[in-house]
Amino acid sequence: MKLGVCAHVFYPLGRGPEAFAAAVAQAAELGFEAIELPVDARSPFIDLDDALAGGHARIAETVRGAGLTISALSNHQEGQLLLGPHGVDTDAIHAGSAEVKQRYAHDRLVKTAELARRLEVDVVCGFTGCEDYSRWFPWPLEDGYERMVPQFRAVMMPVLDELAARGVRFAHECHPRQFAYNLETAQLALAAVDQHPALAFNLDPANLLLAGMDPVVFIAELGARIAHVHGKDGELVAHHAARSGLLAHGAPHRRDRGFRFRVPGWGDLSWRRLISELQLARFTGVIAVEHEDPTMSPREGLVQAVRHLAPLILRDPVPEARWW
Amino acid sequence: MKLGVCAHVFYPLGRGPEAFAAAVAQAAELGFEAIELPVDARSPFIDLDDALAGGHARIAETVRGAGLTISALSNHQEGQLLLGPHGVDTDAIHAGSAEVKQRYAHDRLVKTAELARRLEVDVVCGFTGCEDYSRWFPWPLEDGYERMVPQFRAVMMPVLDELAARGVRFAHECHPRQFAYNLETAQLALAAVDQHPALAFNLDPANLLLAGMDPVVFIAELGARIAHVHGKDGELVAHHAARSGLLAHGAPHRRDRGFRFRVPGWGDLSWRRLISELQLARFTGVIAVEHEDPTMSPREGLVQAVRHLAPLILRDPVPEARWW
Amino acid sequence: MKLGVCAHVFYPLGRGPEAFAAAVAQAAELGFEAIELPVDARSPFIDLDDALAGGHARIAETVRGAGLTISALSNHQEGQLLLGPHGVDTDAIHAGSAEVKQRYAHDRLVKTAELARRLEVDVVCGFTGCEDYSRWFPWPLEDGYERMVPQFRAVMMPVLDELAARGVRFAHECHPRQFAYNLETAQLALAAVDQHPALAFNLDPANLLLAGMDPVVFIAELGARIAHVHGKDGELVAHHAARSGLLAHGAPHRRDRGFRFRVPGWGDLSWRRLISELQLARFTGVIAVEHEDPTMSPREGLVQAVRHLAPLILRDPVPEARWW
Amino acid sequence: MKLGVCAHVFYPLGRGPEAFAAAVAQAAELGFEAIELPVDARSPFIDLDDALAGGHARIAETVRGAGLTISALSNHQEGQLLLGPHGVDTDAIHAGSAEVKQRYAHDRLVKTAELARRLEVDVVCGFTGCEDYSRWFPWPLEDGYERMVPQFRAVMMPVLDELAARGVRFAHECHPRQFAYNLETAQLALAAVDQHPALAFNLDPANLLLAGMDPVVFIAELGARIAHVHGKDGELVAHHAARSGLLAHGAPHRRDRGFRFRVPGWGDLSWRRLISELQLARFTGVIAVEHEDPTMSPREGLVQAVRHLAPLILRDPVPEARWW
Amino acid sequence: MKLGVCAHVFYPLGRGPEAFAAAVAQAAELGFEAIELPVDARSPFIDLDDALAGGHARIAETVRGAGLTISALSNHQEGQLLLGPHGVDTDAIHAGSAEVKQRYAHDRLVKTAELARRLEVDVVCGFTGCEDYSRWFPWPLEDGYERMVPQFRAVMMPVLDELAARGVRFAHECHPRQFAYNLETAQLALAAVDQHPALAFNLDPANLLLAGMDPVVFIAELGARIAHVHGKDGELVAHHAARSGLLAHGAPHRRDRGFRFRVPGWGDLSWRRLISELQLARFTGVIAVEHEDPTMSPREGLVQAVRHLAPLILRDPVPEARWW
Amino acid sequence: MKLGVCAHVFYPLGRGPEAFAAAVAQAAELGFEAIELPVDARSPFIDLDDALAGGHARIAETVRGAGLTISALSNHQEGQLLLGPHGVDTDAIHAGSAEVKQRYAHDRLVKTAELARRLEVDVVCGFTGCEDYSRWFPWPLEDGYERMVPQFRAVMMPVLDELAARGVRFAHECHPRQFAYNLETAQLALAAVDQHPALAFNLDPANLLLAGMDPVVFIAELGARIAHVHGKDGELVAHHAARSGLLAHGAPHRRDRGFRFRVPGWGDLSWRRLISELQLARFTGVIAVEHEDPTMSPREGLVQAVRHLAPLILRDPVPEARWW
Repeated sequence: MKLGVCAHVFYPLGRGPEAFAAAVAQAAELGFEAIELPVDARSPFIDLDDALAGGHARIAETVRGAGLTISALSNHQEGQLLLGPHGVDTDAIHAGSAEVKQRYAHDRLVKTAELARRLEVDVVCGFTGCEDYSRWFPWPLEDGYERMVPQFRAVMMPVLDELAARGVRFAHECHPRQFAYNLETAQLALAAVDQHPALAFNLDPANLLLAGMDPVVFIAELGARIAHVHGKDGELVAHHAARSGLLAHGAPHRRDRGFRFRVPGWGDLSWRRLISELQLARFTGVIAVEHEDPTMSPREGLVQAVRHLAPLILRDPVPEARWW
Repeated sequence: MKLGVCAHVFYPLGRGPEAFAAAVAQAAELGFEAIELPVDARSPFIDLDDALAGGHARIAETVRGAGLTISALSNHQEGQLLLGPHGVDTDAIHAGSAEVKQRYAHDRLVKTAELARRLEVDVVCGFTGCEDYSRWFPWPLEDGYERMVPQFRAVMMPVLDELAARGVRFAHECHPRQFAYNLETAQLALAAVDQHPALAFNLDPANLLLAGMDPVVFIAELGARIAHVHGKDGELVAHHAARSGLLAHGAPHRRDRGFRFRVPGWGDLSWRRLISELQLARFTGVIAVEHEDPTMSPREGLVQAVRHLAPLILRDPVPEARWW
Repeated sequence: MKLGVCAHVFYPLGRGPEAFAAAVAQAAELGFEAIELPVDARSPFIDLDDALAGGHARIAETVRGAGLTISALSNHQEGQLLLGPHGVDTDAIHAGSAEVKQRYAHDRLVKTAELARRLEVDVVCGFTGCEDYSRWFPWPLEDGYERMVPQFRAVMMPVLDELAARGVRFAHECHPRQFAYNLETAQLALAAVDQHPALAFNLDPANLLLAGMDPVVFIAELGARIAHVHGKDGELVAHHAARSGLLAHGAPHRRDRGFRFRVPGWGDLSWRRLISELQLARFTGVIAVEHEDPTMSPREGLVQAVRHLAPLILRDPVPEARWW
Repeated sequence: MKLGVCAHVFYPLGRGPEAFAAAVAQAAELGFEAIELPVDARSPFIDLDDALAGGHARIAETVRGAGLTISALSNHQEGQLLLGPHGVDTDAIHAGSAEVKQRYAHDRLVKTAELARRLEVDVVCGFTGCEDYSRWFPWPLEDGYERMVPQFRAVMMPVLDELAARGVRFAHECHPRQFAYNLETAQLALAAVDQHPALAFNLDPANLLLAGMDPVVFIAELGARIAHVHGKDGELVAHHAARSGLLAHGAPHRRDRGFRFRVPGWGDLSWRRLISELQLARFTGVIAVEHEDPTMSPREGLVQAVRHLAPLILRDPVPEARWW
Repeated sequence: MKLGVCAHVFYPLGRGPEAFAAAVAQAAELGFEAIELPVDARSPFIDLDDALAGGHARIAETVRGAGLTISALSNHQEGQLLLGPHGVDTDAIHAGSAEVKQRYAHDRLVKTAELARRLEVDVVCGFTGCEDYSRWFPWPLEDGYERMVPQFRAVMMPVLDELAARGVRFAHECHPRQFAYNLETAQLALAAVDQHPALAFNLDPANLLLAGMDPVVFIAELGARIAHVHGKDGELVAHHAARSGLLAHGAPHRRDRGFRFRVPGWGDLSWRRLISELQLARFTGVIAVEHEDPTMSPREGLVQAVRHLAPLILRDPVPEARWW
Repeated sequence: MKLGVCAHVFYPLGRGPEAFAAAVAQAAELGFEAIELPVDARSPFIDLDDALAGGHARIAETVRGAGLTISALSNHQEGQLLLGPHGVDTDAIHAGSAEVKQRYAHDRLVKTAELARRLEVDVVCGFTGCEDYSRWFPWPLEDGYERMVPQFRAVMMPVLDELAARGVRFAHECHPRQFAYNLETAQLALAAVDQHPALAFNLDPANLLLAGMDPVVFIAELGARIAHVHGKDGELVAHHAARSGLLAHGAPHRRDRGFRFRVPGWGDLSWRRLISELQLARFTGVIAVEHEDPTMSPREGLVQAVRHLAPLILRDPVPEARWW
C-alpha cells in the first residue's frame, strides 16, 4: 500500500501547468507518494483534449519530477452523465438532452482511458450515475431498482469494452446517486455486466458508511475488485444526528448536519480495520486522501490525514505462514 | 391515546361493503378502538366518489356499529402525485402528464377532505411526493433540495387552504421519496407554507428510523403538529446490515435485507420512549398499527402488535403537579 | 418476594381513616400484596402519636382486612433532620435550630420504631440526612466527606440502639443528600457504626442509577443488609441528557430533564437482573412500588408498574442443587 | 412453531409410569404443547429396552392422553460416548474402554432411533462427543482440530445410516465438548459426512452464545438443517464477567459465575430475533424449553419461560407476497 | 487554536521569580505556547498585590522571554468565596464571616482583573461558588436551586461590571460546587445577569463529563461565550464505576474511584469531536492543559498531554465555502 | 516500565550466535530496551545445556552489547508437559509417556531457572499445561476442574521450590489449555500452592480477552503477582465473529476467524487502561511485545507495535500525593 492524494484539494492553487506543478510539489512535500488526477472539464490542471494531443508527456514529467506516481485518473463529473439523472441536476456538467449527455459521458470516459493508457496508469476512477437513485425504496414502484438493470448494462458494456481494450479498469465509486451505492448493488452491477473484468471499484469507505453498511465487509467480499481506495472518513455527528439523521439534506458546510465527511482519523471509521482487511485481500495499491472535510482548510486537512494514515500504511505482504 | 389500525391490512378480505364490515369487525375483535381508512382508488372498501354521493352514511354506520371510530382518512397513493415523481414510477396510480397527475392529486385530496368533513373526521393522512428525493445529497446540484421549496409551496398552499376550509388537517407522513422525510425537512416544509395551520404530521416512527434519526426528538420538537401516529416498527437487521446497509434496495419481502419494517415490539423502537414523549406532548389521538411486516401473516401481525402496544397505551393525562 | 406499594401515591385520596381504607382497598384491587406506610407528619393516613395512643389496632385491622401486610413503616421526611442540612431546606419539616431538628428527628424515629413493633413490622425505612452532601467532591475541602463520619456515628448509634431494642432494623435509603448515597458510602456508614446489626438498607435502585453506579452490585455485596426494596425506575432521558446531564436541577416535572424517575419497566433498569440477584441473595421481602413518575397519573403509574413487575416476582427459593 | 418442554426438568417428580404421567400432565397444565423425552439410562421415565419391548404404546398413550405430542427423543448422555472423551469424564455414563464406550453409544442411539420410529417421532436430539474439545485452540498441535475429522466421519456415518434407515434425523446440539460447537464446526461436521441427509441440528441458542457467536446467523445459514430448537437462554453476568469471563469454570450453581444458563427472557438472547429468523427459514417445529437456570425452581422456571415465549410463538406461515 | 498549560502543575518547582522562570521555561520546552496563571494567594509564582504594585512588568517579561503568551489569569480559589459555601469548607482560603469572605472574593477578583488589564490579558478564569450545590436535587426544597438565583445575580453583577470596565471577561468554569455546573445552569447564570457581556466560560470538558452531559453540546450552544478551554480529560473507570458510580467521594488519589481526572488522551473524551466543534464555533483561543491526573507525575503527564493534543490543534480557520 | 520484545519473532533470521546477535541488534534498532528469551529446544538462539555449560556469558554479552537487558527467560513449550495434555498433542515437544514428559518438563524448567540465575534474570515465563482444559465446562463431570487441583499442586510445588531456591519467580501465562487461564483460575492456582511466593504471572492481556474477561481487573486484583507483561493484542473480528464466535478453531492464519491475535494498537485492548492500572499497581517491569499477528510481517508488526506502545510507556512513579 501507498499513500496518495486526490488532486482536487489543490484546485485553489490556480489554473494551468504552474499551478499543477505547485500542486504536485505540495503533495510530495506533505508526504504523499502518489496522486489521483481528475480530468473532467472542471479540472484546472488537466485539459483532456490537450493532454491527448501531446500534453500527456508534460503531465507525466511533472508528476515524476516530484517523485510521485499517478495512482489513477478520475472522472466522476462526466461519468455521472452516463446514467444521469439527465435533467437540470447535471446541466452544469454538460447541457443537452439525455442522449447528448450520455454520448458525451461515453466519449469523455473513453478519452480518459486513452490518456490513462498513455500515462501508463491502469485505473480510471469514476461514477456511472443513476437514472433515479431514490428508487432504492420500493415504492411507488416495487421493482423500480431492478428496472434500471438493463439500462445499466446497455450503457456500461460498451464503456467497459473500450477501457478493457486500453488495459484500463473502470473503478466505480459506490456513492449516493449511483446505481451501485453499497455492497449489494455493487454485486448487482457486476452481475449486470457479466462480471466484466474491466469493472472494478474505487473503495470510498465514507460513502459506504453513509449507506449504513460496513465498508470492511465490502473488502472481505469484493477485495479482488478493489483497484483504488479513497482515504475519506465520515462522521455521524452525535449531537445533531437525532435531528437530521444520516440522510442530512443541504450544503455540506451546514454546521448542524447529522453526517459530514471528514479527513481520515476524524470520523467514525477504524482505519486499522480497513487496512487490515485490505492487507488480507492482498491490496497493494494506493489509498488516496480525498479531503472534503468542511471543518478544515485544504492544507490542514491534508496534514491531519497524513498524520493519521501514514503511520498505518502496511508495506510488507501478509506472511503466508507462521514464522515462530 | 387510543389504539387503532390502518385498514389496508384487511384488503385480503375482499372488496365491497361486506368485506369492509368484516374488516371493521375483525379490527374490533382484535382489540382496536379506531380505524384509519385509506380512500385512494386502490381501496377495496371505500369508493371516494360513491361515498361523497351519499355512501358516507353507510361507512359511518359500519364503523360505529362495530364500536370503533375513524381516526383518519388517508390517501398516500394519490398524494404522491402532488409533487411526483411524475414519470413511470407513479403511472400505476394515475397515468398522464405531470400536470395531469398533479391536478388529479389535488382533486382527490380535496375530495378526501370533503369526505372526512362529512364523516366528522378532522385528519387526512397522506404523502405529498417529491420531485426528486435523491437530491437530499448535495451533488451534482448543491442547492438541489432548496430548489424544490418554491414548487412545494406552490402546490401545497392550495391543498392546505382547501383542507382548512373543511376543518381538516393534512397529516403528512415523513417517509422516503417525500419532500419532508425527517425532522429538519418537516420544519422546512412548515416554513415553506408559512406555518400553515392545516399542515400537520402523521408520525410514523419506523420511517424516521430509516432516515437514521430519533423519532422521539421529532415528538419533542413538533409534538403540537402531530395529528396521528402510525404503530409501525423498523428493524436494522443486525446480521444483514453490514451488507445492504440501512438503504436496502429491492422488494420488502427479500429475506436478507438490512432493514425491514416490523410490527411494534419486533423492531428497534422503544415504544415506551415514544409513548412517554407523546404523553408529555399532550397527544391524545390514535396510534394506528400499520402492519407491513414481511415475516408475519396479516392477522398474526396484528395480534402481536396489540399484544405489545395495548398494555402501554396511556389514557390518563400527565399530572400537572406533584401529588405526594 | 412479594409485590407492595408505598402509600404516598394514595395521598390524593384524602385524609383520615376512610381515605386510608380506600387507599388500602385500591392497593389490593390493583394486585399489591403489601403496603409501605409513611408515618411522618405529612401523612394523611397515619398520625404517629395517635397510633401509639391506641390507633395502631385500627391500622392493623384496615390493612389485614384488605388482605395486605405492612412491609415497612417509613419516615424519610423526619429522618432527614438527623444530619440535616439544618437550614431553610428542612424548615418545612420541622422548624428550629440544628439541635432542635436533630432531637425531633431522633424522637420521631424512635416513635416510628415503637409503632412498628406494635404492628409487628420489623423494618423502618428512612433517611439519615447529611450535613453537606456536596462534599462528595473533594474540593475545597479534600477530606470533607471523611470529616462527617464522626457526626454520623454520634447521631446514628443511639437511633440504632433504640431500634434494635424494639426488634426493628433501620433501612436507610441511599439517595442524593444522604450520607450514604452509593455502595461505597453505604459500606462507610456500616463501618462508622461498627456494623451495627440494626443498620440495613431500603434498596431503591433508581437512586443508585442516579449516582451512576450499578444497583445489582449493591445487592451482590450488601444483599444480606437489604431489608426492603423500592420498585422505582430511572430514565436517563436520551434526548435531553446531553444538555442537563445526569444531575438535572429543578422540578421533577420539568419536561426536558436529562434524568427522571419512572415506574418500573419504563426506565433503564433491568428488573430481571435486579430480581435475579435479589433471589441469589435469598431476599424474600417486599418490592414496594414507589411511583414518582412525572408522566403518569397516580393510578395509571401503578397499573403500569404491576403489569411490569408482577410477572417477574419469584416466589420459590433458589434451588440448592442441580435437579437434573 | 409450537412450544414444548424438555422432560428432564420433571425428574424430581420421581421414577416410573406414574411420575411420567404426572410430568406430562404438569407440562400440559403449564401450557406446553409438546415434550422432548430423554431416553438415556438416567431417565426416570423411559427405560429404552422396556419401551422397545412393547412399552412404547403406553408412552404414546400417556403423552397423547395429556393432549401433547413428542417433539423429539433425546440422548445426549450416551451420544457423548461416540467420540468421548473416553476417560474418567464419561465413566458415570458407561464404564469401559474407549471401544466399549463407543460401541455402547452406537447401540443406544440406534435403539433410540428405533423407539422414535415406533413412536412416529422423526427427530433424535443428542450429542456426538469430541475426543479433545480443547483442540479448538491451535496449540500445541496446530492442526489438532482437523485431525479429528476422520474419526468423526468414521463413527458418525454408520450412526447416520442407521437413523436414516428408520426415517429419523439426528439433531446434534452444538455445545462445549462436542466436535460441532459453533456454526463453522457444524458446517465442518456436515462436510465430514458428505452432507448426510440424516444429520440435522437441535438449535440451542444459549450454547452458541457461550461460544461467542450469533445464533441468528446459525439459523440464517443452516436453517434447513434445524430439526428442533431448545428454549434456553444464557446470561453474560455483567457484574461477574470481568473476573471469570465467558468460560467460567466450576459448578453451574456457583453464584459468581460470569456466564450462566437462564430460562428464556432472563438472559441476553433476543427471542424475537431468533423467532423471526426461524420463521423466515420456514421452521415449523417445536421450541422445547430446557430449564437449567440455577436461580429458579423447576416449576417457577417453566412458568417464567412460558410467560416469555408463548406470546411470541408464530403459528401462521410467512406470507409469500405483499398483501397490501 | 493554541496549546497552553495551567501553571499550577509547576508549583513543585518552588516559590518566587526563579521558580516562576523555571516553570515558564519548562512549559516552553515541553512545547506549550501559552500559560494560564493562577493568581490566588496559594500561587508560589504571583503575588497579586506585588504584581499590581509594579511587579507585572517582570511577569510579562518572563513569559515573553520564553516565547509564550499568557492565555488567562485565573482565580478559582478566591472566586469560590463569592457564593460559598461560606463555612469551614472555605476557611483555608480566607477565614471570616460569610460577608467577609464574599467581600474578599469580590476585591480579589477585581484586582485579578486589574492585573489582567495591565498584562493585556482579556480573560480571568475562575469559580463563583454556590451556596449549596446539593440543592440541584429538588428535595427537601423543591425550588431550592431557583432560590439561589437572586443571590447569584446580586453578587455577580458588580463583579462583572468591574471586569467589563477593565476590558476583561470572567470565564466561569462549570464544575461541581458551582452555581453553573452544566449547560442548563450555565444558561441559567447568563439569564440571571441579563446576558451580561462580561460573563463567559472556561470550558473544562472533564467537569462536564462528571455532570453526565456532553461537553460538545455545550460548545454547540454556547460557543460564542467560551473564552478559554481546559485541556483536561476524565475517565469513568470501567472496573470501579459499578461500585462508586460517577459521584465518587474521597481523595482524588484513591485508587479505586469510579471517576478520575486524566490528562487528555487517557480519558473518555474525544478531543477530535471537541476540537471540531470549537473550530466550527470559530474559537481561536487557547486550550490550556490542566494536569490533575493522579496516575502520572507532573512532568510525565504534560508530556503525554502534549503528545495527544498538539497534533490535533487546528490553526487554520474553517473554510467559508467549498473549494472543490 | 520498559518496552521489550519476545525473541521468537526473530527466528526467521536463522540459527546460532550470529543470528542471535542480529536479532538483538534489530531489537535495539527498532527501539526496544529489553528482550525476552525463549530457551526451549525449539530456540535457534539458545541451547540450554550449552548455555549452562558456560555459554551464558556470551549470551549476556551479546545482549548487553546491544544496550538491552533480558526481561525474562521463557519456556512455554516444555512447561506445557508438566500437566499435559500428555498424548499426541505434545509429542512434537518431547515424545514419551506421561511420566517421561512430566519429568522432562520439570528438569528443563529447573535448568531454565538456573540459567536465569546465572544471567541475573529473576523471571521465568512459561506454561504449566493442563490435563484437560475442556473440563472448564462442568459436564459430563461436574467437578472436573476441581479434580485437577491436587495434581496441579503435586507437580507445581517442587518446580516452585526449585525456582525459589534460585531467586527466580515462575511467571505463568494464563492462556487456553492451561490450568490457570483467567483471573479466577489464577487465584485457584495460587491457593493450590499455598500462595507460594515463587508463583507469579506473565500477563498476556490478549489471552485474557480470549477468555472473555477484562485484563485490567486481573491487574487490579493480582497486580503484585505480575512479574512480566506481554505486549500482545487481540481482535474480535467484527465481521466474522457472528460465525466462528470467540472460540474460532483452526490455524491462526485462517483469514475468516472471528478472533485473532494482533500487535498492540491493532486489536480491541485499551493499552492506556492497561498501562494506567499497571502504573497504579506500581509495576516497573517490562512489557515485551509478542508478535503473533497473522496480518503483518515480523518486522512490520514490530514497527507498528513500537509506534503504538512506546509513546505510552510511563517511566515516572505514581505521585504519592497531590502536588497542586
